[in-house]
Amino acid sequence: MSATPETSTDATTDATTSPAPAPVTVLGLGPMGRALASTFVAAGHPTTVWNRTEGKADELVAQGATVASTPAEAVAASELVVICVIDYAASDSILEAAGDAIKGRTLVNLTADSPDRARTAATWATERGADYLDGTILTPTVTIGTPAAVFLFSGPEALYETHRATFASLGGTATYQGADHGRAAAYDVALLDFFWTSVSGLMHAFALARKEDIAARDLAPFARGILDLLPPIMDQLAGNVDDGVYPGEDSHIISVAAGIEHVIHAADDRGMDTGVLRAARAVAQRAIDEGHGTDGIERLAEVLGRPAA
Amino acid sequence: MSATPETSTDATTDATTSPAPAPVTVLGLGPMGRALASTFVAAGHPTTVWNRTEGKADELVAQGATVASTPAEAVAASELVVICVIDYAASDSILEAAGDAIKGRTLVNLTADSPDRARTAATWATERGADYLDGTILTPTVTIGTPAAVFLFSGPEALYETHRATFASLGGTATYQGADHGRAAAYDVALLDFFWTSVSGLMHAFALARKEDIAARDLAPFARGILDLLPPIMDQLAGNVDDGVYPGEDSHIISVAAGIEHVIHAADDRGMDTGVLRAARAVAQRAIDEGHGTDGIERLAEVLGRPAA
Repeated sequence: MSATPETSTDATTDATTSPAPAPVTVLGLGPMGRALASTFVAAGHPTTVWNRTEGKADELVAQGATVASTPAEAVAASELVVICVIDYAASDSILEAAGDAIKGRTLVNLTADSPDRARTAATWATERGADYLDGTILTPTVTIGTPAAVFLFSGPEALYETHRATFASLGGTATYQGADHGRAAAYDVALLDFFWTSVSGLMHAFALARKEDIAARDLAPFARGILDLLPPIMDQLAGNVDDGVYPGEDSHIISVAAGIEHVIHAADDRGMDTGVLRAARAVAQRAIDEGHGTDGIERLAEVLGRPAA
Repeated sequence: MSATPETSTDATTDATTSPAPAPVTVLGLGPMGRALASTFVAAGHPTTVWNRTEGKADELVAQGATVASTPAEAVAASELVVICVIDYAASDSILEAAGDAIKGRTLVNLTADSPDRARTAATWATERGADYLDGTILTPTVTIGTPAAVFLFSGPEALYETHRATFASLGGTATYQGADHGRAAAYDVALLDFFWTSVSGLMHAFALARKEDIAARDLAPFARGILDLLPPIMDQLAGNVDDGVYPGEDSHIISVAAGIEHVIHAADDRGMDTGVLRAARAVAQRAIDEGHGTDGIERLAEVLGRPAA
């Protein structure tokens, strides 16, 4: 990573050069947008908000925010404009509605979507005279304004530097990930990949346990224990994936496939949906068929990088 | 759970009633079998070992173990016989080869397989006059003999109580899970389900990051951070699964499906294998099609409990 973590301590330091918290506009007042706006207000930023449907701003106005009646009015109110909506289709239409008001503004898009859509949105905004940073929020709504929040940004580094004190008002850790506007979204999408696949596995494990008369509650402490096995080996696995080195001493793909087969067998016996497991088994089988059965599990990242036949 | 955790402290306490560590036989000297035997030797148990192929016992003999030349000879050497091999097909054939020697012995099968196979093996052994406990080891080879080891046992409770001091020699935490011989294997198979699905997701995330020019090494610290989100919510998720309660306030299935769709879109664009993600997406779609789109993710456990159409 090319930047050191930001903390709210740094914000205090930066505040010596720009003592008054800068005005901020927040477009989109879903749960995350409201958390962002509320945190900016609490940190003393003059905060203007706008939402497609009314009523979402009431609590924020009570806290001290100003509500704008159109996207153009909201964008006109602050040099820094933060957007956090459901997807880029929504953010595109809001920014289009703002029209010429975006010229000369710095747009910070925290909407989650794919890297390519972030790049396209950046090009669109730049062509219309706006500066553009893309960002991603890796932690839930409740972490905003706390040390647990994690933000990534990508786009022009000078823009990030100009506004880092304002980002620091959101708490937690922010890191700058590079000039490619799609980079923050690329991290986001890869981490979503890991998270939702793991959650899918957890739900299947709870379902399988219950078929065997084990309560999900009784499995949970052991599931936490199993999760503890991953962090200590993660750097080693990642390094091997990067280096294309696949040592199979501890656990090779043939034994992993056998393990998954046991699970499929048990789940099929209980009349369960085994689609995810069968798809995972098929990836291991591809590796075995290609002669990589005694490689370590890191080989699977290489296999997954190629389309299934 | 019906038993309190065992630690090596308890072993010391029990040792006042049975001062000399009991003789143990270990059948199977793969990496886990060797770790078990070596730990028994180090704890002072007279230890007899046997393996299908020769040479695996050399180091153990140097440490003080006795090598037997047949399964029957190995089983005859100790009242307590621990078996840890690749699967139940292997353990069945070894126990059959031991013949009448198993009569009156206590067999403790730590081989990983499905719950039904554990039950079948227990019935087979009991019919031949052996006592039978099934067990599972939830932690890697390197944890054996350390506080990090985790063992589960199921079968007759009196048998477990008789040998708990010997099990405590293996270090870590052991818990008794009930009289059903398949119960330890049921925990094991559900936890394997969770672990291998998560690892599959991690490998896919590494591969996707690399397609976006993010090194797996750079993703790893954030992947650890994402993993930290699960333990604090796991008991709540498990409780909701058990209670059939699916609140969707924080994150409902429609938004999860949209998130998975972003990932599939990004991975397809990069020419990746998206089989696991598409299978996970299909499960969410089943829930949506059944009218449960605004339920929380716990609903997926209920859907996964039924076969795909």
